Amino acid sequence: MAFTPQDPDFEARVRATFARQLYMTTIGAELVRVAPGEIDIALPFRADLTQQHGYLHAGVVTAIVDTACGCAAYTLMPAGSGVLSVEYKVNLLAPSVGERMLARGRVLRPGRTLTVCSGEVVAITEDGGEEKTVVAMLATMMRLDKV
Amino acid sequence: MAFTPQDPDFEARVRATFARQLYMTTIGAELVRVAPGEIDIALPFRADLTQQHGYLHAGVVTAIVDTACGCAAYTLMPAGSGVLSVEYKVNLLAPSVGERMLARGRVLRPGRTLTVCSGEVVAITEDGGEEKTVVAMLATMMRLDKV
Amino acid sequence: MAFTPQDPDFEARVRATFARQLYMTTIGAELVRVAPGEIDIALPFRADLTQQHGYLHAGVVTAIVDTACGCAAYTLMPAGSGVLSVEYKVNLLAPSVGERMLARGRVLRPGRTLTVCSGEVVAITEDGGEEKTVVAMLATMMRLDKV
Amino acid sequence: MAFTPQDPDFEARVRATFARQLYMTTIGAELVRVAPGEIDIALPFRADLTQQHGYLHAGVVTAIVDTACGCAAYTLMPAGSGVLSVEYKVNLLAPSVGERMLARGRVLRPGRTLTVCSGEVVAITEDGGEEKTVVAMLATMMRLDKV
Repeated sequence: MAFTPQDPDFEARVRATFARQLYMTTIGAELVRVAPGEIDIALPFRADLTQQHGYLHAGVVTAIVDTACGCAAYTLMPAGSGVLSVEYKVNLLAPSVGERMLARGRVLRPGRTLTVCSGEVVAITEDGGEEKTVVAMLATMMRLDKV
Repeated sequence: MAFTPQDPDFEARVRATFARQLYMTTIGAELVRVAPGEIDIALPFRADLTQQHGYLHAGVVTAIVDTACGCAAYTLMPAGSGVLSVEYKVNLLAPSVGERMLARGRVLRPGRTLTVCSGEVVAITEDGGEEKTVVAMLATMMRLDKV
Repeated sequence: MAFTPQDPDFEARVRATFARQLYMTTIGAELVRVAPGEIDIALPFRADLTQQHGYLHAGVVTAIVDTACGCAAYTLMPAGSGVLSVEYKVNLLAPSVGERMLARGRVLRPGRTLTVCSGEVVAITEDGGEEKTVVAMLATMMRLDKV
Repeated sequence: MAFTPQDPDFEARVRATFARQLYMTTIGAELVRVAPGEIDIALPFRADLTQQHGYLHAGVVTAIVDTACGCAAYTLMPAGSGVLSVEYKVNLLAPSVGERMLARGRVLRPGRTLTVCSGEVVAITEDGGEEKTVVAMLATMMRLDKV
């Protein structure tokens, strides 16, 4: 779906918000794509982010796809607004193992107050570069009137 | 609901699994209660775990309540089994701010393969000690036959 | 949790909304309890509402607990407002069989725009009257400004 | 994604299961597409299936997309198995109004025990035939060993 942002400076606004998420820096996540209604975030695998089987913890992959969905919604919001996650659901489709994870957040339906997004996380291995989907998300994001 | 564990050593097994979740150590989470079908995990607030408004990132509070639900399910599973999150949904009810968070995972319905849990995260401030519920979760956990 | 309704006539307003849900009449659902933040809806078992194994269809039990949650949220909204389901998640814990189903919707956190509810459906058999929880729900309801 | 069914007679098996869902007959739903991992179900609008604003009740559109997802999962299961919904989440994106609804269930990841599906319901108006997405679903379906 093609979206037209209300705010021509949406990219700078979204990048600034991402930069203020200290947790994204803590885990080493990087914002790799900002487009209207579309955000990609990359996360290199790190052992200190794993659960008991050596996979990335579900909370970690949830965090990057939540931020991807929130920022995707935020690309379409007006200047001066803020964004907050209302709720989300994730299905964990396969173990989160691989050299890096790529989280994609996409707007399904933008709204004045609420924006619904779908997200996925794919695991990427550098050699073949083949993608495996490890997480599917449906999320609701809310616009805040002032920040 | 009162549950009778199949494995008398459930507590040691659950504590060992928690200890192998390196990510729990990374964020400073602590296992504070292990009972049949019931797990509590505490997390002191830390600025490096926050999102753009200074609240704990949704992925962080999701992580502790996911682990609480997974471990709660695991208390009722037999020795020699493993546990994996299949899916969960969280509603973010209020900003995750406070001196520490307490995640409670509770088994709603145990099953041979799948166990359904409910979870919540409450924010606690040390002075008054009043609790505020910040997250509600419904989760499905799966038993793995061998670990 | 104890809630104080803003609208003293909340019960009449909620009963009128329920009565306008033609689908509730179609399936034979009945509003059996209206209290601030709390709604119960009963549904006698009917074979024409079943799926392939003879249980009530998941969509039918979802319908009654969705209406229970929506009406529970609506009890706390001001006069002149409307209510709409934004999203929900259900876990199907056991087959929906029994003489009648009772859906309970409860407000977890009321808000100006969004209200989060939890719901459950229990199956009741008339002889013993023992309850079995068959559905757990977490739902987000939205207030509409005018109706 | 292209899937190869294990059971060459999957279509007859899925059609038989759909036919046994008496509730689908009750609401007038029709199975309009059966392919490996893909099911479409159509539902003409009917006033006796509506909620208080005259839209189709959320439980009704949930029912058709739940059945679409369940049958999509079932296309890939072996002969002699059964299927049951474990859980699902729906986001209600727009009011379910239009001449008919079309529910699409698609397998995201098939598994031996659990199959994850995504679903959507689109509203169709006969004149222009333009589609509007009204529901998004993520669902987990479970294979039963015998039926």
